[in-house]
Amino acid sequence: MSLLEAYKKNDPAARSLLEVALLYPGIKAILLHRVAHRLYTWGVPFFPRLVCEISRLLTGIEIHPGARIGKNLVIDHGMGVVIGETSEIGDDCLIFHGVTLGGKGGFGKRHPTMGNRVMVGAGAKLIGNITIGDDAKIGANSVVTKHVPNNATAFGIPARIYNHETQPE
Amino acid sequence: MSLLEAYKKNDPAARSLLEVALLYPGIKAILLHRVAHRLYTWGVPFFPRLVCEISRLLTGIEIHPGARIGKNLVIDHGMGVVIGETSEIGDDCLIFHGVTLGGKGGFGKRHPTMGNRVMVGAGAKLIGNITIGDDAKIGANSVVTKHVPNNATAFGIPARIYNHETQPE
Amino acid sequence: MSLLEAYKKNDPAARSLLEVALLYPGIKAILLHRVAHRLYTWGVPFFPRLVCEISRLLTGIEIHPGARIGKNLVIDHGMGVVIGETSEIGDDCLIFHGVTLGGKGGFGKRHPTMGNRVMVGAGAKLIGNITIGDDAKIGANSVVTKHVPNNATAFGIPARIYNHETQPE
Repeated sequence: MSLLEAYKKNDPAARSLLEVALLYPGIKAILLHRVAHRLYTWGVPFFPRLVCEISRLLTGIEIHPGARIGKNLVIDHGMGVVIGETSEIGDDCLIFHGVTLGGKGGFGKRHPTMGNRVMVGAGAKLIGNITIGDDAKIGANSVVTKHVPNNATAFGIPARIYNHETQPE
Repeated sequence: MSLLEAYKKNDPAARSLLEVALLYPGIKAILLHRVAHRLYTWGVPFFPRLVCEISRLLTGIEIHPGARIGKNLVIDHGMGVVIGETSEIGDDCLIFHGVTLGGKGGFGKRHPTMGNRVMVGAGAKLIGNITIGDDAKIGANSVVTKHVPNNATAFGIPARIYNHETQPE
Repeated sequence: MSLLEAYKKNDPAARSLLEVALLYPGIKAILLHRVAHRLYTWGVPFFPRLVCEISRLLTGIEIHPGARIGKNLVIDHGMGVVIGETSEIGDDCLIFHGVTLGGKGGFGKRHPTMGNRVMVGAGAKLIGNITIGDDAKIGANSVVTKHVPNNATAFGIPARIYNHETQPE
């Protein structure tokens, strides 16, 4: 599955791959991030952040050039998304607008690590060097500062964690 | 009452209708949405979404061309607002920045239906094919996934519903 | 400490003052606000709001020209920040993206007053003519509608207040 197909599959309102390619901000942000991340890994000064800021201006999505992002990440709507420098995101994840993968200050690994097929609802804030397990779901506007196991759902402020048997209604 | 007057009435900081017409992002978003929605109802491909994305770039407000919006909707500040394809909004509503009328996936009617004179606080997420009654108020950053009756207030994550006698302080 | 140094000190990912000066949206927003606020205090019509809207378009940060802002305010990431007309912010504060200093309508002083060295987490909404004490911390996505004492932490919807001895984990 290509990145374009991942977007189209996700969005019941999408009409064509051309529409997705030209009009979806998440696609532009991912492609520009690939450029910025390449420059970042080469140690190029200034330009990775420049690409990041251009992307932010065009899309409303801010992905630090250092962030490591897996295949087929869909960023839906995207306005206000912030993904910090040491974040890691697995494959086939879905992130909505307003989501933050943030840090608490300090140096070194200080942002979240997300597994595969994770879904993060609009406005959720994931903060610190925490791990979000495969197939986890994070509810809209939740604030998550602790590890979330595989298949679990996290919801609320601070987020409570529900396993597969005790899902919130 | 015209749309411009609705904005001016809402904002104690507004100085003149000219200021409102030229500078308020919500006005631009509503006018561009009327164009996009017309094209959408005619079945024109691609261009409705193009107008939507141009509007999002200029205003930070994303209204799907399919959304049905009543008279005098005021979108205050507006950055990060997302209104989904099958949303319906009544007359004289007030929506702040960061508000989402979102879906849970699937097809068909999958976004909220809002009555008249509804107020939705900044950052609130209204999710699914739910009904928000006339004169209801939704608190800032609340997450609403259930019906809200007329005159009620919904507040929190998940939102609890208070009727007129049991308003939260 | 200059404004640029305040930004660099705050951000472990910042590489140089030049990078901060040219690429950080918060810097642009503060400098443009200084222009807008000067025009506002002179009573110039229309142009203060025009500068404000240009700043919002470039940075995603909306600071009403009337807001009074102290030294070395760092607005990190910044997308979706809204600071209302009668807000007052002390020195050396740190505000993340999505933060709102908002009002409940009406006229006169209707927005928050923040002390010095206050930290406001991403997405938090501070609403009404409330006071946030020196060195207070507001958690991400919190909704604060009451006074917060010096050194306290406020967190949740509605925000509960914890003093220095009873910090939330």
